[in-house]
Amino acid sequence: MNLTDYIKKFEKKEIIVIQGLGFVGSAMSLVCANAIKGDYGVIGVDLPNAQGKKIVNDLNNGIFPFKSEDPKIVSFFQKSINKKNFFATTEKKAFQYADVIIVDINLDVIKKNDSSGALNNYDVDISPLKKAIKSIGDECKEDVLVLVETTVPPGTCKEVIKPILYNCLIERKLSTKNIRIGHSYERVMPGPDYIDSIQNYYRVYSGINKDSANAVEIFLKTIISTDKYPLTRLGNTNSTEMAKVLENSYRAMNIAFMVEWSRFAEEAGVDLYNIVKAIRMRSTHSNMMYPGIGVGGYCLTKDALLASWSRQNLIGKNDPLLLSEKAININDQMPRFTFEFLQKQDLNLSNSNVLLLGVSYRGDVGDTRSTPVENLYNYLIEEGASISCHDPYINYWDEKSIEIIQDLSTHLNDTMDIIIISTGHSIYKDDKTVDKIFNLEPLLIFDTIGHLSNKQINRLKKKHTVKVLGRGDI
Amino acid sequence: MNLTDYIKKFEKKEIIVIQGLGFVGSAMSLVCANAIKGDYGVIGVDLPNAQGKKIVNDLNNGIFPFKSEDPKIVSFFQKSINKKNFFATTEKKAFQYADVIIVDINLDVIKKNDSSGALNNYDVDISPLKKAIKSIGDECKEDVLVLVETTVPPGTCKEVIKPILYNCLIERKLSTKNIRIGHSYERVMPGPDYIDSIQNYYRVYSGINKDSANAVEIFLKTIISTDKYPLTRLGNTNSTEMAKVLENSYRAMNIAFMVEWSRFAEEAGVDLYNIVKAIRMRSTHSNMMYPGIGVGGYCLTKDALLASWSRQNLIGKNDPLLLSEKAININDQMPRFTFEFLQKQDLNLSNSNVLLLGVSYRGDVGDTRSTPVENLYNYLIEEGASISCHDPYINYWDEKSIEIIQDLSTHLNDTMDIIIISTGHSIYKDDKTVDKIFNLEPLLIFDTIGHLSNKQINRLKKKHTVKVLGRGDI
Repeated sequence: MNLTDYIKKFEKKEIIVIQGLGFVGSAMSLVCANAIKGDYGVIGVDLPNAQGKKIVNDLNNGIFPFKSEDPKIVSFFQKSINKKNFFATTEKKAFQYADVIIVDINLDVIKKNDSSGALNNYDVDISPLKKAIKSIGDECKEDVLVLVETTVPPGTCKEVIKPILYNCLIERKLSTKNIRIGHSYERVMPGPDYIDSIQNYYRVYSGINKDSANAVEIFLKTIISTDKYPLTRLGNTNSTEMAKVLENSYRAMNIAFMVEWSRFAEEAGVDLYNIVKAIRMRSTHSNMMYPGIGVGGYCLTKDALLASWSRQNLIGKNDPLLLSEKAININDQMPRFTFEFLQKQDLNLSNSNVLLLGVSYRGDVGDTRSTPVENLYNYLIEEGASISCHDPYINYWDEKSIEIIQDLSTHLNDTMDIIIISTGHSIYKDDKTVDKIFNLEPLLIFDTIGHLSNKQINRLKKKHTVKVLGRGDI
Repeated sequence: MNLTDYIKKFEKKEIIVIQGLGFVGSAMSLVCANAIKGDYGVIGVDLPNAQGKKIVNDLNNGIFPFKSEDPKIVSFFQKSINKKNFFATTEKKAFQYADVIIVDINLDVIKKNDSSGALNNYDVDISPLKKAIKSIGDECKEDVLVLVETTVPPGTCKEVIKPILYNCLIERKLSTKNIRIGHSYERVMPGPDYIDSIQNYYRVYSGINKDSANAVEIFLKTIISTDKYPLTRLGNTNSTEMAKVLENSYRAMNIAFMVEWSRFAEEAGVDLYNIVKAIRMRSTHSNMMYPGIGVGGYCLTKDALLASWSRQNLIGKNDPLLLSEKAININDQMPRFTFEFLQKQDLNLSNSNVLLLGVSYRGDVGDTRSTPVENLYNYLIEEGASISCHDPYINYWDEKSIEIIQDLSTHLNDTMDIIIISTGHSIYKDDKTVDKIFNLEPLLIFDTIGHLSNKQINRLKKKHTVKVLGRGDI
């Protein structure tokens, strides 16, 4: 099928076009194709480069481009195939037919970190975003609803996106009166609740004017269970843009805070996990973080910088958000601190065989974007260690070009000197796994995320040296 | 009655001595005198200086030394008077009779702030603590339980208190084998739940050895409702000491984080309150703070510094806890930011009559310790403003030596140019108060803590200029 044929089928229905078919856009396409209310023709558009073409081909051949543990991905995809209401393309002219365009492209931060991982400098390049918005403005209907879901520096919809779209319409001799522009950030979490993190979750939204906000509301109510998860309208697009980066900066800050304290805890010979558990009994402190190997993923590693960049460049010429920037700086050093912890042990790292259990940045999810394990891996390689990696959710570690053998028993053998639990996958705290490790002869078992239970640690300690990051007591 | 007579009455009962009769020790004395299980003779000891003598006299004359809104303070006090099981004194020899000594003295941080409020330097002087502990060691029984409740730098029980007590016993030719030393931090909150914040709340505890921890547990179970609020034992005194300062540093950090963002929100013309309300719907973000005039009270303004000092001086010679120190630095500047917000308004502050609604650091509580209102007051005075202060819970503002007229109507009159809501007392958001303000002719109503409702703000805006800190939208 080609785009023109597809469009013909939906002449009398509303057309939703999703710009950007990454982790968010691909899942969003399925949610729109399975709208709770309404019956849409959905088109996914990606760039005509190698990666974009591959994703588009995959999707049109019934292959979801990302590995997912969420069974709803399969069932939603199958339903849309049966209904024939989803089509992917690299052709920009798809925007011509759209009643709603959802912007789900990436906006990256270019970070410059020194050898210790500390953040020295960063920049935000919004030119790809500008280009993407222009490609919409060059094609779209004059009364389209453009709904931006991308995490952007506060001010972007008002100061960047709106002017581009208006200029395009003016150049095309169209009216700017009827276009609606809104912002509603996603909270997509690839993993077992991938679809639900869109369809069954709270949403905050806004528009550049009342018409826009109303249009966003009407649309979101057709794809999200707003009865259970009521929408929140904020007064302007700056507000929703800020809410998203604030949310993630807050999380990054709480993690960074704990980094310093976990090092202090080690020095003081105390178990920070026990302390945090005791403190979390207070409802005001219930979200206090635990120590760990580091922060990964696409959002927490950069969103605070988007905000700080905006404060300096977009909203005003003001100071950076110093604390939030410092949080990213500290978090970026966490893999280094983890490595330094290893260095302090009485080991010869350069002659060691190291097994990394988990390369994903998150437990029970296969996602290596900005995973902290990558930095730990790099430091160990520089030191001359031999490393083997296991991850039950990753066949191929793209960023490192490493094939991963998914059979855990292959990895668990007596050639291993150091076994590092680096990702919180359930399988690693399975008693069977711990039994296997118990029967080996490693020099050190290093739990970087407090994954093992006290019972498991006590068992392993009978035979092995066990260390847990942030627990100075063992 | 004198000490000797009092002691005679309790020859066959256990004697609890509380060292330090401040906000914590005074209330703790009442809780011990009204133990849930057990029947104690309770003695409160304070220093023989003017302040100590006054408190001791007050207590022995049935006057609780601090104003409190908690009806339980009155009823607990009356019960102990009826039972005649509480006596206050400045005589150190009281420690001779103690089976349990509870240390509730202050440990202060000496902060050096520059004119903007920023923290330039600080020091922790533990010599008063050392002296207090020595006064116990010089008198105590060799098998006493010394339970430290004071918030101390991690390491203090082990590195400071234990050696002093051991040395005293050795000098007195007594055994050091039977003394028990423990730590269990209080979470006392003067206010309507003053007593419950001791008797009905979670507790974390530890001891310098197992005997000590067991003794603390047995004792705490007699005064706290541990059925409803189970105790948590941690592995060593470093752990509980760290837990307390971590708890408060975390809170201070979350506040400091929001300070930066509230200024950003103002610049971006957004209402940070609405944003935070939307974000708090996520359980992981439910404790996100709101903007405000600043942090006050005895704990949040200093505990992070106790921790950082310990990391540099007591636990090791390591780096400071940079983020936690930075949090205090930023929080200390909040009153300055509040003042600068006022300066940016089109006002002649030097000729203005300013009404401060509230001088306490906390709503519906009369407590001016480290209140941020004091700094705002100072900045306004420096600028030449005339200030009147109201607070329904404060008769006399000690730190500023100001008598406070408690009748609100006396303050609300047309000579006021600027009305500042500086403390979250309920009376200020009473519609009657808002009505009175509406009928005045002030130039500006400035809500520094987001105390007024949107409805109240909209009403006031019909006639007045209204500003709310952290709300760039009005």
